[in-house]
Amino acid sequence: MVKEQEPIMETHFQKELEELKKNLLKMATLVEEAINNAVQSLVKRDSELAQKAFEAEDRINTMDIAINTECLNLLALRQPMAADLRFITSALKIITDLERMGDQAVNIAERAVSLNREPQLKPYIDIPRMAEIAQTMVKDVLDAFVNRDSKLARSVCERDDLVDGLNDQVVRELLTYMTSDPKTTKSAMHLMIVSRCLERIADHATNIAEDVIFIVDALVIKHHADTQENDERR
Amino acid sequence: MVKEQEPIMETHFQKELEELKKNLLKMATLVEEAINNAVQSLVKRDSELAQKAFEAEDRINTMDIAINTECLNLLALRQPMAADLRFITSALKIITDLERMGDQAVNIAERAVSLNREPQLKPYIDIPRMAEIAQTMVKDVLDAFVNRDSKLARSVCERDDLVDGLNDQVVRELLTYMTSDPKTTKSAMHLMIVSRCLERIADHATNIAEDVIFIVDALVIKHHADTQENDERR
Repeated sequence: MVKEQEPIMETHFQKELEELKKNLLKMATLVEEAINNAVQSLVKRDSELAQKAFEAEDRINTMDIAINTECLNLLALRQPMAADLRFITSALKIITDLERMGDQAVNIAERAVSLNREPQLKPYIDIPRMAEIAQTMVKDVLDAFVNRDSKLARSVCERDDLVDGLNDQVVRELLTYMTSDPKTTKSAMHLMIVSRCLERIADHATNIAEDVIFIVDALVIKHHADTQENDERR
Repeated sequence: MVKEQEPIMETHFQKELEELKKNLLKMATLVEEAINNAVQSLVKRDSELAQKAFEAEDRINTMDIAINTECLNLLALRQPMAADLRFITSALKIITDLERMGDQAVNIAERAVSLNREPQLKPYIDIPRMAEIAQTMVKDVLDAFVNRDSKLARSVCERDDLVDGLNDQVVRELLTYMTSDPKTTKSAMHLMIVSRCLERIADHATNIAEDVIFIVDALVIKHHADTQENDERR
Protein backbone atom coordinates (compact mmCIF):
# COMPACT_ATOMS: atom_id res chain seq x y z
CA MET A 1 0.00 0.00 0.00
CA VAL A 2 2.22 2.81 -1.29
CA LYS A 3 0.74 6.26 -1.11
CA GLU A 4 0.44 8.16 -4.38
CA GLN A 5 2.01 11.59 -4.21
CA GLU A 6 2.44 14.47 -6.64
CA PRO A 7 5.79 14.11 -8.44
CA ILE A 8 6.94 17.50 -7.10
CA MET A 9 6.09 16.45 -3.53
CA GLU A 10 7.94 13.19 -4.08
CA THR A 11 11.07 15.08 -5.09
CA HIS A 12 10.85 17.41 -2.13
CA PHE A 13 10.22 14.51 0.25
CA GLN A 14 13.13 12.57 -1.25
CA LYS A 15 15.37 15.58 -0.63
CA GLU A 16 14.23 15.70 2.98
CA LEU A 17 15.01 12.00 3.36
CA GLU A 18 18.48 12.58 1.88
CA GLU A 19 19.01 15.39 4.39
CA LEU A 20 17.94 13.05 7.22
CA LYS A 21 20.41 10.41 6.00
CA LYS A 22 23.22 12.99 5.89
CA ASN A 23 22.45 14.09 9.45
CA LEU A 24 22.39 10.50 10.71
CA LEU A 25 25.81 9.85 9.14
CA LYS A 26 27.13 13.07 10.66
CA MET A 27 25.89 12.05 14.11
CA ALA A 28 27.46 8.59 13.69
CA THR A 29 30.79 10.17 12.71
CA LEU A 30 30.73 12.25 15.88
CA VAL A 31 30.11 9.09 17.91
CA GLU A 32 32.95 7.22 16.17
CA GLU A 33 35.32 10.11 16.88
CA ALA A 34 34.23 10.24 20.53
CA ILE A 35 34.93 6.51 20.96
CA ASN A 36 38.28 6.91 19.24
CA ASN A 37 39.33 9.88 21.38
CA ALA A 38 38.20 8.15 24.59
CA VAL A 39 40.16 4.97 23.86
CA GLN A 40 43.22 6.81 22.50
CA SER A 41 43.21 8.86 25.69
CA LEU A 42 43.68 5.57 27.54
CA VAL A 43 46.18 3.99 25.15
CA LYS A 44 48.35 7.12 24.78
CA ARG A 45 47.82 8.08 28.44
CA ASP A 46 46.80 11.55 27.22
CA SER A 47 43.92 12.96 29.24
CA GLU A 48 43.50 15.88 26.83
CA LEU A 49 42.05 13.44 24.32
CA ALA A 50 39.46 12.49 26.95
CA GLN A 51 38.44 16.15 26.97
CA LYS A 52 37.57 15.87 23.26
CA ALA A 53 35.21 12.98 24.06
CA PHE A 54 33.54 15.11 26.76
CA GLU A 55 33.11 17.97 24.30
CA ALA A 56 31.66 15.68 21.63
CA GLU A 57 28.84 14.70 24.00
CA ASP A 58 27.15 18.10 23.72
CA ARG A 59 27.28 18.06 19.96
CA ILE A 60 25.90 14.51 19.87
CA ASN A 61 23.04 15.48 22.20
CA THR A 62 22.19 18.54 20.12
CA MET A 63 22.00 16.37 17.01
CA ASP A 64 19.81 13.86 18.85
CA ILE A 65 17.25 16.59 19.58
CA ALA A 66 17.47 18.10 16.09
CA ILE A 67 17.06 14.78 14.24
CA ASN A 68 14.21 13.76 16.56
CA THR A 69 12.34 16.95 15.61
CA GLU A 70 13.20 16.40 11.93
CA CYS A 71 11.68 12.88 12.06
CA LEU A 72 8.50 14.03 13.85
CA ASN A 73 8.05 16.78 11.25
CA LEU A 74 8.47 14.31 8.40
CA LEU A 75 5.92 11.96 9.98
CA ALA A 76 3.43 14.78 10.55
CA LEU A 77 3.81 16.69 7.31
CA ARG A 78 4.64 13.97 4.77
CA GLN A 79 2.62 11.11 6.23
CA PRO A 80 4.93 8.50 4.75
CA MET A 81 3.89 4.90 4.12
CA ALA A 82 5.53 1.47 3.93
CA ALA A 83 9.33 1.57 3.56
CA ASP A 84 9.61 5.34 4.16
CA LEU A 85 7.59 5.05 7.35
CA ARG A 86 9.83 2.24 8.59
CA PHE A 87 12.89 4.26 7.63
CA ILE A 88 11.83 7.30 9.67
CA THR A 89 10.64 5.38 12.74
CA SER A 90 13.89 3.40 12.67
CA ALA A 91 15.84 6.65 12.47
CA LEU A 92 14.11 7.69 15.71
CA LYS A 93 15.37 4.55 17.42
CA ILE A 94 18.82 4.80 15.86
CA ILE A 95 19.50 8.28 17.24
CA THR A 96 18.65 6.96 20.72
CA ASP A 97 21.26 4.23 20.29
CA LEU A 98 23.82 6.70 18.93
CA GLU A 99 23.22 9.05 21.84
CA ARG A 100 23.76 6.23 24.32
CA MET A 101 26.96 5.21 22.54
CA GLY A 102 28.11 8.79 23.07
CA ASP A 103 27.38 8.33 26.79
CA GLN A 104 29.50 5.19 26.78
CA ALA A 105 32.38 7.08 25.15
CA VAL A 106 32.12 9.62 27.99
CA ASN A 107 32.24 6.76 30.54
CA ILE A 108 35.38 5.41 28.87
CA ALA A 109 36.97 8.87 28.85
CA GLU A 110 36.22 9.29 32.58
CA ARG A 111 37.86 5.94 33.39
CA ALA A 112 40.82 6.86 31.16
CA VAL A 113 41.38 10.05 33.14
CA SER A 114 41.40 8.03 36.41
CA LEU A 115 43.65 5.32 34.96
CA ASN A 116 46.11 7.83 33.52
CA ARG A 117 46.78 9.09 37.05
CA GLU A 118 47.98 5.62 38.18
CA PRO A 119 50.88 3.50 36.90
CA GLN A 120 49.80 1.39 33.93
CA LEU A 121 48.61 -2.07 35.04
CA LYS A 122 49.37 -3.86 31.79
CA PRO A 123 49.93 -3.07 28.11
CA TYR A 124 46.58 -2.43 26.43
CA ILE A 125 46.09 -4.89 23.57
CA ASP A 126 42.56 -6.29 23.58
CA ILE A 127 40.86 -3.02 24.51
CA PRO A 128 42.15 -1.07 21.46
CA ARG A 129 41.16 -4.05 19.28
CA MET A 130 37.65 -4.03 20.75
CA ALA A 131 37.47 -0.27 20.17
CA GLU A 132 38.54 -0.65 16.56
CA ILE A 133 35.90 -3.30 15.87
CA ALA A 134 33.22 -1.29 17.71
CA GLN A 135 34.01 1.86 15.71
CA THR A 136 33.83 -0.01 12.41
CA MET A 137 30.52 -1.51 13.53
CA VAL A 138 29.12 2.00 14.13
CA LYS A 139 30.34 3.20 10.72
CA ASP A 140 29.16 0.12 8.82
CA VAL A 141 25.76 -0.10 10.46
CA LEU A 142 24.94 3.49 9.54
CA ASP A 143 26.15 2.88 5.97
CA ALA A 144 23.99 -0.25 5.93
CA PHE A 145 21.02 1.82 7.10
CA VAL A 146 21.27 4.66 4.59
CA ASN A 147 22.10 2.30 1.70
CA ARG A 148 19.49 -0.30 2.72
CA ASP A 149 22.24 -2.95 2.76
CA SER A 150 21.05 -5.85 4.91
CA LYS A 151 24.14 -7.94 4.04
CA LEU A 152 26.40 -5.34 5.64
CA ALA A 153 24.00 -5.16 8.60
CA ARG A 154 24.29 -8.93 9.06
CA SER A 155 28.08 -8.66 9.11
CA VAL A 156 27.74 -6.10 11.92
CA CYS A 157 25.65 -8.59 13.94
CA GLU A 158 28.33 -11.24 13.43
CA ARG A 159 31.09 -8.94 14.70
CA ASP A 160 29.20 -8.54 17.99
CA ASP A 161 30.35 -12.03 18.97
CA LEU A 162 33.99 -11.02 18.42
CA VAL A 163 33.60 -8.08 20.79
CA ASP A 164 31.80 -10.22 23.38
CA GLY A 165 34.61 -12.78 23.17
CA LEU A 166 37.29 -10.11 23.67
CA ASN A 167 35.35 -8.68 26.62
CA ASP A 168 35.21 -12.12 28.28
CA GLN A 169 38.95 -12.48 27.71
CA VAL A 170 39.67 -9.05 29.23
CA VAL A 171 37.49 -9.82 32.27
CA ARG A 172 39.17 -13.20 32.84
CA GLU A 173 42.66 -11.71 32.57
CA LEU A 174 41.84 -8.82 34.92
CA LEU A 175 40.31 -11.20 37.46
CA THR A 176 43.65 -13.02 37.53
CA TYR A 177 45.41 -9.74 38.29
CA MET A 178 42.93 -8.92 41.04
CA THR A 179 43.10 -12.29 42.77
CA SER A 180 46.89 -12.53 42.62
CA ASP A 181 47.48 -8.92 43.72
CA PRO A 182 44.59 -7.12 45.48
CA LYS A 183 46.42 -3.76 45.03
CA THR A 184 45.52 -3.94 41.33
CA THR A 185 41.78 -4.18 42.08
CA LYS A 186 40.92 -0.54 41.48
CA SER A 187 42.74 -0.19 38.16
CA ALA A 188 41.49 -3.58 37.04
CA MET A 189 37.90 -2.50 37.83
CA HIS A 190 38.31 0.67 35.74
CA LEU A 191 39.60 -1.40 32.83
CA MET A 192 36.74 -3.88 33.17
CA ILE A 193 34.29 -1.02 32.93
CA VAL A 194 36.04 0.34 29.82
CA SER A 195 35.80 -3.12 28.28
CA ARG A 196 32.13 -3.39 29.20
CA CYS A 197 31.43 0.06 27.72
CA LEU A 198 32.94 -1.08 24.42
CA GLU A 199 30.85 -4.23 24.58
CA ARG A 200 27.74 -2.08 25.07
CA ILE A 201 28.67 0.16 22.14
CA ALA A 202 28.86 -3.00 20.02
CA ASP A 203 25.45 -4.04 21.41
CA HIS A 204 23.94 -0.71 20.37
CA ALA A 205 25.41 -1.12 16.87
CA THR A 206 23.91 -4.62 16.77
CA ASN A 207 20.52 -3.23 17.83
CA ILE A 208 20.66 -0.83 14.90
CA ALA A 209 21.77 -3.64 12.56
CA GLU A 210 18.72 -5.68 13.60
CA ASP A 211 16.53 -2.69 12.80
CA VAL A 212 18.19 -2.32 9.40
CA ILE A 213 17.46 -5.95 8.60
CA PHE A 214 13.89 -5.33 9.77
CA ILE A 215 13.34 -2.34 7.52
CA VAL A 216 15.18 -3.74 4.49
CA ASP A 217 14.01 -7.33 4.52
CA ALA A 218 10.92 -6.70 6.68
CA LEU A 219 12.22 -9.60 8.71
CA VAL A 220 12.47 -9.68 12.49
CA ILE A 221 15.74 -11.36 13.51
CA LYS A 222 15.95 -9.44 16.78
CA HIS A 223 14.43 -12.21 18.81
CA HIS A 224 15.31 -15.01 16.39
CA ALA A 225 11.57 -15.23 15.77
CA ASP A 226 11.90 -15.91 12.02
CA THR A 227 8.82 -13.77 11.48
CA GLN A 228 8.54 -12.74 7.87
CA GLU A 229 6.21 -9.92 6.94
CA ASN A 230 6.16 -10.23 3.19
CA ASP A 231 3.08 -8.09 2.84
CA GLU A 232 5.08 -5.15 4.14
CA ARG A 233 7.84 -5.72 1.64
CA ARG A 234 8.47 -3.21 -1.13
CA MET B 1 -1.74 22.19 14.23
CA VAL B 2 -4.28 19.57 15.23
CA LYS B 3 -5.72 17.50 12.41
CA GLU B 4 -9.51 17.56 12.00
CA GLN B 5 -11.02 14.10 11.84
CA GLU B 6 -14.50 12.70 11.42
CA PRO B 7 -16.03 12.09 14.89
CA ILE B 8 -16.45 8.37 14.14
CA MET B 9 -12.79 8.08 13.10
CA GLU B 10 -11.76 9.93 16.24
CA THR B 11 -13.63 7.40 18.39
CA HIS B 12 -12.13 4.46 16.56
CA PHE B 13 -8.66 6.00 16.75
CA GLN B 14 -9.11 6.75 20.45
CA LYS B 15 -10.02 3.10 21.00
CA GLU B 16 -6.87 2.02 19.18
CA LEU B 17 -4.80 4.35 21.35
CA GLU B 18 -6.44 2.88 24.47
CA GLU B 19 -5.57 -0.60 23.21
CA LEU B 20 -1.96 0.52 22.67
CA LYS B 21 -1.82 1.88 26.23
CA LYS B 22 -3.17 -1.39 27.62
CA ASN B 23 -0.55 -3.38 25.72
CA LEU B 24 2.25 -1.12 26.93
CA LEU B 25 1.10 -1.58 30.54
CA LYS B 26 0.88 -5.32 30.02
CA MET B 27 4.43 -5.43 28.65
CA ALA B 28 5.66 -3.32 31.58
CA THR B 29 3.99 -5.71 34.05
CA LEU B 30 5.80 -8.64 32.44
CA VAL B 31 9.09 -6.76 32.82
CA GLU B 32 8.38 -5.94 36.49
CA GLU B 33 7.59 -9.59 37.18
CA ALA B 34 10.75 -10.74 35.41
CA ILE B 35 12.88 -8.38 37.52
CA ASN B 36 11.11 -9.54 40.67
CA ASN B 37 11.57 -13.24 39.88
CA ALA B 38 15.22 -12.75 38.96
CA VAL B 39 16.05 -10.90 42.18
CA GLN B 40 13.92 -13.20 44.37
CA SER B 41 15.75 -16.14 42.83
CA LEU B 42 18.94 -14.62 44.26
CA VAL B 43 17.52 -13.57 47.63
CA LYS B 44 15.67 -16.84 48.28
CA ARG B 45 18.45 -18.90 46.65
CA ASP B 46 15.76 -20.56 44.52
CA SER B 47 16.92 -21.16 40.95
CA GLU B 48 13.43 -22.16 39.84
CA LEU B 49 12.40 -18.53 40.14
CA ALA B 50 15.22 -17.69 37.71
CA GLN B 51 13.54 -20.03 35.26
CA LYS B 52 10.43 -17.81 35.36
CA ALA B 53 12.54 -14.81 34.36
CA PHE B 54 13.96 -16.80 31.43
CA GLU B 55 10.44 -17.76 30.33
CA ALA B 56 9.20 -14.17 30.59
CA GLU B 57 11.81 -13.08 28.05
CA ASP B 58 10.00 -14.79 25.16
CA ARG B 59 6.71 -13.19 26.07
CA ILE B 60 8.34 -9.76 26.39
CA ASN B 61 10.00 -10.16 22.98
CA THR B 62 6.74 -11.23 21.37
CA MET B 63 5.02 -8.14 22.77
CA ASP B 64 7.87 -5.93 21.52
CA ILE B 65 7.27 -7.14 17.96
CA ALA B 66 3.47 -6.92 18.24
CA ILE B 67 3.43 -3.39 19.68
CA ASN B 68 6.01 -2.23 17.13
CA THR B 69 3.69 -3.40 14.33
CA GLU B 70 0.69 -1.82 16.09
CA CYS B 71 2.51 1.56 16.21
CA LEU B 72 3.58 1.42 12.56
CA ASN B 73 0.01 0.62 11.54
CA LEU B 74 -1.34 3.53 13.57
CA LEU B 75 1.20 5.89 11.98
CA ALA B 76 0.41 4.65 8.48
CA LEU B 77 -3.36 4.38 8.68
CA ARG B 78 -4.31 7.16 11.12
CA GLN B 79 -1.64 9.71 10.24
CA PRO B 80 -1.76 11.26 13.70
CA MET B 81 -0.57 14.78 14.45
CA ALA B 82 0.89 16.72 17.39
CA ALA B 83 0.42 15.01 20.75
CA ASP B 84 -0.84 11.71 19.28
CA LEU B 85 2.14 11.55 16.94
CA ARG B 86 4.53 12.12 19.84
CA PHE B 87 2.68 9.51 21.89
CA ILE B 88 3.05 6.80 19.22
CA THR B 89 6.68 7.56 18.35
CA SER B 90 7.51 7.56 22.06
CA ALA B 91 5.75 4.20 22.44
CA LEU B 92 8.13 2.86 19.78
CA LYS B 93 11.11 3.94 21.87
CA ILE B 94 9.56 2.78 25.14
CA ILE B 95 9.10 -0.81 23.97
CA THR B 96 12.80 -0.88 23.05
CA ASP B 97 13.66 0.18 26.60
CA LEU B 98 11.25 -2.37 28.08
CA GLU B 99 12.70 -5.14 25.93
CA ARG B 100 16.22 -4.28 27.10
CA MET B 101 15.06 -4.26 30.73
CA GLY B 102 13.80 -7.80 30.09
CA ASP B 103 17.30 -8.69 28.87
CA GLN B 104 18.75 -7.25 32.09
CA ALA B 105 16.35 -9.39 34.15
CA VAL B 106 17.66 -12.44 32.27
CA ASN B 107 21.25 -11.38 33.05
CA ILE B 108 20.35 -11.11 36.73
CA ALA B 109 18.67 -14.52 36.67
CA GLU B 110 21.76 -16.08 35.06
CA ARG B 111 24.02 -14.62 37.75
CA ALA B 112 21.56 -15.78 40.44
CA VAL B 113 21.79 -19.36 39.16
CA SER B 114 25.61 -19.20 39.35
CA LEU B 115 25.59 -17.57 42.79
CA ASN B 116 23.06 -20.06 44.17
CA ARG B 117 25.57 -22.85 43.50
CA GLU B 118 28.18 -21.23 45.79
CA PRO B 119 28.00 -20.43 49.52
CA GLN B 120 26.41 -17.01 50.09
CA LEU B 121 29.06 -14.29 50.28
CA LYS B 122 27.03 -11.87 52.40
CA PRO B 123 23.40 -11.16 53.31
CA TYR B 124 21.69 -9.36 50.45
CA ILE B 125 20.36 -6.00 51.67
CA ASP B 126 21.10 -3.26 49.16
CA ILE B 127 20.41 -5.36 46.06
CA PRO B 128 16.77 -6.17 47.01
CA ARG B 129 16.30 -2.48 47.86
CA MET B 130 17.64 -1.45 44.46
CA ALA B 131 15.37 -4.01 42.82
CA GLU B 132 12.33 -2.69 44.67
CA ILE B 133 13.06 0.89 43.61
CA ALA B 134 13.78 -0.16 40.03
CA GLN B 135 10.51 -2.12 39.79
CA THR B 136 8.49 0.83 41.12
CA MET B 137 10.26 3.07 38.62
CA VAL B 138 9.14 0.78 35.77
CA LYS B 139 5.57 0.73 37.04
CA ASP B 140 5.37 4.47 37.71
CA VAL B 141 6.98 5.55 34.48
CA LEU B 142 4.49 3.56 32.42
CA ASP B 143 1.62 4.98 34.49
CA ALA B 144 3.10 8.44 33.93
CA PHE B 145 3.21 7.75 30.20
CA VAL B 146 -0.34 6.51 29.74
CA ASN B 147 -1.79 9.17 32.06
CA ARG B 148 0.40 11.96 30.66
CA ASP B 149 1.61 12.69 34.20
CA SER B 150 4.90 14.59 33.94
CA LYS B 151 5.09 15.10 37.72
CA LEU B 152 5.21 11.34 38.27
CA ALA B 153 7.78 11.09 35.47
CA ARG B 154 9.96 13.64 37.23
CA SER B 155 9.80 11.62 40.44
CA VAL B 156 11.07 8.61 38.46
CA CYS B 157 14.06 10.67 37.25
CA GLU B 158 14.81 11.64 40.84
CA ARG B 159 14.79 8.03 42.03
CA ASP B 160 17.52 7.20 39.50
CA ASP B 161 20.04 8.94 41.80
CA LEU B 162 18.99 6.66 44.68
CA VAL B 163 19.69 3.56 42.61
CA ASP B 164 23.01 4.98 41.40
CA GLY B 165 23.99 5.69 45.00
CA LEU B 166 23.11 2.17 46.11
CA ASN B 167 25.07 0.71 43.19
CA ASP B 168 28.15 2.72 44.17
CA GLN B 169 27.75 1.46 47.74
CA VAL B 170 27.45 -2.17 46.60
CA VAL B 171 30.53 -1.84 44.37
CA ARG B 172 32.61 -0.28 47.17
CA GLU B 173 31.58 -2.97 49.65
CA LEU B 174 32.29 -5.80 47.24
CA LEU B 175 35.69 -4.32 46.37
CA THR B 176 36.54 -4.54 50.06
CA TYR B 177 35.62 -8.24 50.05
CA MET B 178 37.70 -8.86 46.94
CA THR B 179 40.81 -7.08 48.17
CA SER B 180 40.72 -8.65 51.64
CA ASP B 181 39.96 -12.18 50.40
CA PRO B 182 40.71 -12.93 46.72
CA LYS B 183 38.70 -16.19 46.98
CA THR B 184 35.53 -14.07 47.05
CA THR B 185 36.40 -12.41 43.71
CA LYS B 186 34.16 -14.55 41.51
CA SER B 187 31.03 -14.28 43.66
CA ALA B 188 31.68 -10.59 44.23
CA MET B 189 31.93 -10.05 40.47
CA HIS B 190 28.59 -11.80 39.90
CA LEU B 191 26.98 -9.57 42.53
CA MET B 192 28.52 -6.45 41.00
CA ILE B 193 27.01 -7.37 37.67
CA VAL B 194 23.59 -7.93 39.28
CA SER B 195 23.87 -4.50 40.86
CA ARG B 196 24.90 -2.93 37.56
CA CYS B 197 21.97 -4.62 35.77
CA LEU B 198 19.57 -3.05 38.27
CA GLU B 199 21.25 0.30 37.74
CA ARG B 200 20.74 -0.08 34.00
CA ILE B 201 17.08 -1.00 34.48
CA ALA B 202 16.70 2.24 36.43
CA ASP B 203 18.50 4.06 33.59
CA HIS B 204 16.03 2.67 31.07
CA ALA B 205 13.11 3.78 33.26
CA THR B 206 14.72 7.22 33.44
CA ASN B 207 15.07 7.32 29.65
CA ILE B 208 11.34 6.65 29.37
CA ALA B 209 10.59 9.28 32.03
CA GLU B 210 12.52 11.86 29.99
CA ASP B 211 10.46 10.92 26.95
CA VAL B 212 7.24 11.30 28.97
CA ILE B 213 8.27 14.79 30.04
CA PHE B 214 9.08 15.49 26.40
CA ILE B 215 5.69 14.40 25.13
CA VAL B 216 3.65 15.91 27.96
CA ASP B 217 5.41 19.21 28.44
CA ALA B 218 7.06 19.25 24.99
CA LEU B 219 10.19 20.00 26.92
CA VAL B 220 13.56 18.34 26.42
CA ILE B 221 15.19 17.63 29.76
CA LYS B 222 17.15 14.66 28.47
CA HIS B 223 20.29 16.62 27.86
CA HIS B 224 19.49 19.39 30.34
CA ALA B 225 19.13 21.59 27.27
CA ASP B 226 16.15 23.53 28.65
CA THR B 227 14.77 23.63 25.14
CA GLN B 228 11.13 24.53 25.17
CA GLU B 229 9.02 23.83 22.12
CA ASN B 230 5.89 25.73 22.96
CA ASP B 231 4.67 25.71 19.37
CA GLU B 232 4.35 21.93 19.65
CA ARG B 233 2.37 22.16 22.84
CA ARG B 234 -1.28 21.16 22.95
